Amino acid sequence: MSNKPTLAKGTRDFGPAQVAKRKFILNTIEAVFKKYGFMPIETPAMENLTTLEGKYGDEGDQLLFRIINSGDYLKDLKALHERVLADESQDKTYLPSINGKLNELDSKATLPFITEKGLRYDLTVPFARYVVMNRNDITFPFKRYQMQPVWRADRPQKGRYREFWQCDADIVGSDSLLCELDLIQIYIEAFTLLKVPFQIKYNNRKLLDGLSHLLGLADKLMEMTIILDKQDKIGLDAVVNELLNIGANPSELKSFTDALNNSIDTDNVINFFSRNETSLKGIEELKTISNGLNICFKDDEAINKKVVHDLALARGLSYYTGAIFEVVSTQGSLKSSIGGGGRYDNLTGIFGMPNISGVGISFGLDRIYDVMEELQLFPETLQGTTTRILICAMDQPTQSYCISILKQLRDAGIAAELYPDLKKLGKQLDYANALHIPFAIIVGENEIKSGSLVLKNLSEGTQQELSIQQIITHVGI
Amino acid sequence: MSNKPTLAKGTRDFGPAQVAKRKFILNTIEAVFKKYGFMPIETPAMENLTTLEGKYGDEGDQLLFRIINSGDYLKDLKALHERVLADESQDKTYLPSINGKLNELDSKATLPFITEKGLRYDLTVPFARYVVMNRNDITFPFKRYQMQPVWRADRPQKGRYREFWQCDADIVGSDSLLCELDLIQIYIEAFTLLKVPFQIKYNNRKLLDGLSHLLGLADKLMEMTIILDKQDKIGLDAVVNELLNIGANPSELKSFTDALNNSIDTDNVINFFSRNETSLKGIEELKTISNGLNICFKDDEAINKKVVHDLALARGLSYYTGAIFEVVSTQGSLKSSIGGGGRYDNLTGIFGMPNISGVGISFGLDRIYDVMEELQLFPETLQGTTTRILICAMDQPTQSYCISILKQLRDAGIAAELYPDLKKLGKQLDYANALHIPFAIIVGENEIKSGSLVLKNLSEGTQQELSIQQIITHVGI
Repeated sequence: MSNKPTLAKGTRDFGPAQVAKRKFILNTIEAVFKKYGFMPIETPAMENLTTLEGKYGDEGDQLLFRIINSGDYLKDLKALHERVLADESQDKTYLPSINGKLNELDSKATLPFITEKGLRYDLTVPFARYVVMNRNDITFPFKRYQMQPVWRADRPQKGRYREFWQCDADIVGSDSLLCELDLIQIYIEAFTLLKVPFQIKYNNRKLLDGLSHLLGLADKLMEMTIILDKQDKIGLDAVVNELLNIGANPSELKSFTDALNNSIDTDNVINFFSRNETSLKGIEELKTISNGLNICFKDDEAINKKVVHDLALARGLSYYTGAIFEVVSTQGSLKSSIGGGGRYDNLTGIFGMPNISGVGISFGLDRIYDVMEELQLFPETLQGTTTRILICAMDQPTQSYCISILKQLRDAGIAAELYPDLKKLGKQLDYANALHIPFAIIVGENEIKSGSLVLKNLSEGTQQELSIQQIITHVGI
Repeated sequence: MSNKPTLAKGTRDFGPAQVAKRKFILNTIEAVFKKYGFMPIETPAMENLTTLEGKYGDEGDQLLFRIINSGDYLKDLKALHERVLADESQDKTYLPSINGKLNELDSKATLPFITEKGLRYDLTVPFARYVVMNRNDITFPFKRYQMQPVWRADRPQKGRYREFWQCDADIVGSDSLLCELDLIQIYIEAFTLLKVPFQIKYNNRKLLDGLSHLLGLADKLMEMTIILDKQDKIGLDAVVNELLNIGANPSELKSFTDALNNSIDTDNVINFFSRNETSLKGIEELKTISNGLNICFKDDEAINKKVVHDLALARGLSYYTGAIFEVVSTQGSLKSSIGGGGRYDNLTGIFGMPNISGVGISFGLDRIYDVMEELQLFPETLQGTTTRILICAMDQPTQSYCISILKQLRDAGIAAELYPDLKKLGKQLDYANALHIPFAIIVGENEIKSGSLVLKNLSEGTQQELSIQQIITHVGI
């Protein structure tokens, strides 16, 4: 039974200090979500595969972690096999996987028979399922937040894990652009509180939709979007070349790249986009958001620099239909986004509840953690332990005496510990120092006789003789 | 793509009010853990099956949720098949599962080849793995708490779910009975704060070990323990009969049942157990704990009634070697335990790190929730939303005006919302009422002109004309 244990590939343990830091981020974001009127929901880690499959594209389907049916998981497959063999009318060639020897088995074809459940891949699809299943009990517009882990069978690499957390806030049941304004403000407030240097880019898919018509790429919207999305990585010249390669109208493309360097409000940008109805709508939506931001932050130069419209922002996921957002850290080595989101007009449609508009944002906990760690943004007080006082006793009668002292400290709300073993004082203080416990009370015969105690300040190296009441006053917060 | 979505069997969604209540329990327990010097860790949901298998008995192994290998999951099985076929020296009969047609496949024999990972079954084994993997960085004694979901492929039934939370606190690296004393106090403090009517039973496995010798059942310790454990359900007479059936010495059994009705301190109990060295040690340990409880609660009649030594308490799990604990709710319909734990002398031994003693307790979040819901113990203030003010505007210019009012409220730390759609006032107030939002500000032309606002107290039905500053003072907490 003795073996050297390991972690599953792409997963991590979090020790006390890491948990404290992760909770600091989660609690900060959660407090902002609440201030903006969002309510928490939680969905299970396991979802039926019928809920998950087909929602994330072919690549996503391959990255789902599938859970094998419990009990005799081959039962259904064997039953089907027997049914097909017994039924003369069945074409026995169409299921090579169940028709013959094991080495002819096909992984993909057998999967539906041996797995029914999978692990949550994101928080958006489970949220859509939740809304559809609870539609009669929900008061719309429904503002929900959700902070839970998700799992993807991705190839593990630096900064990419198979289990990681998402923190999402979505509003469903309203197409008001005030929702977009709220979500941008949530990003501003949360990242400001976390002290993460950030830039929020926003754009509108309607603008991109219109652009595809203007460039003569109406049938290549997705390809165009993917190319635009790469601008950060490959540069504008390469983007122009790739767009020309897929057939963009050269003179329209020239007008567009000229517009790229200008604000959304300028005449040549408006003139360019207003020739198409959809992109005109996109321009109007962007202006409404920009006006809202002006009302909130008109005198705040710093914020105005941090929230920018970016005509080239496209966001990969295809279900966005209106506003799109992306947040990046402007310092440190992490180049990928630390947050993103957008408006989707028909998310619950996949579960048979059409015409419900939604808009949401996501915070990438793990990436925000990495940025904050690299830039040393965590408060220094975030240690693993919250213990304020360690009581040290070196013999049995003293230890019994200390039980009551410990009780009094805890009754006063002070986090305290009595070192449990009768080890040498040095060893006990090593424990306090390793855990950054700030105070120690060392009890011996003299203290039991006098009834007073010696409180040691471990960081300052000082000590005072005090009564238990004085210690409570001194150490209590 | 349109289908009616369902939850995976045995799993649940939690809506805003449920999350608020669950967090209330979790936060209460966590605050107590911290006050007693415990530090948080988190381990991944997915563990290697080599970590999980063989740790929970045969039944446990069957209840593990196994995750199918990603990619071509049949690859290893097929490779083995080919190797066996190619190797003349191999006995081709020993693996029926890979030797022939699909309908000869055996679920159990193929499992090791198509699954490598499983879902966390409890928090104890992952904790043992964590301790072994991090032994060089951990300061012992290590007091850790962990609050995370676990998964079991149990048959779903009322009060039993396939995904549920455990909240564990363990101390490893000390065999001091002060640890047991701390853990009992944590139970007392947490359940008192939660207002759950509780009884804590404790006992010692050494006593049971000795008892098996005294009753002549030394080779039937496990059977004896299981019979004793049923006393709550089947009664003492049935227990006696079952013990006689497996060969208990009748006169010794009589002495034991006489002892059962007495306190651990009484002479006939001590005389009975002190004839065996192991149970004498058990008696001594129980008395040390009882003395500690006396120091802490000697004048507290209520607590003394709630914490009782129970000679018949056995706890099913076989890895306990010393103290054992169990907590039950003394009111309501739930008869099963809402917490339990004990000391295990060799938990990390399963991972090749012997002789590390540990002791721990667990809180069953879902059962505590059910008890608190049934007994209506949740604070009434636990609503889904934390929003204090809803701002209502009925036309576009007013809505723009309100953006700035909303910003001022939030800047003052007040959770506030502006109803996003231009609907009738009644509809907007319906939203506030459904979410139990206590205040509304209704803005119209007059308010924009005068600069003052009407604050409606929705529960009292009153209203006042106030400035934004006055509202902040009035509503702010």
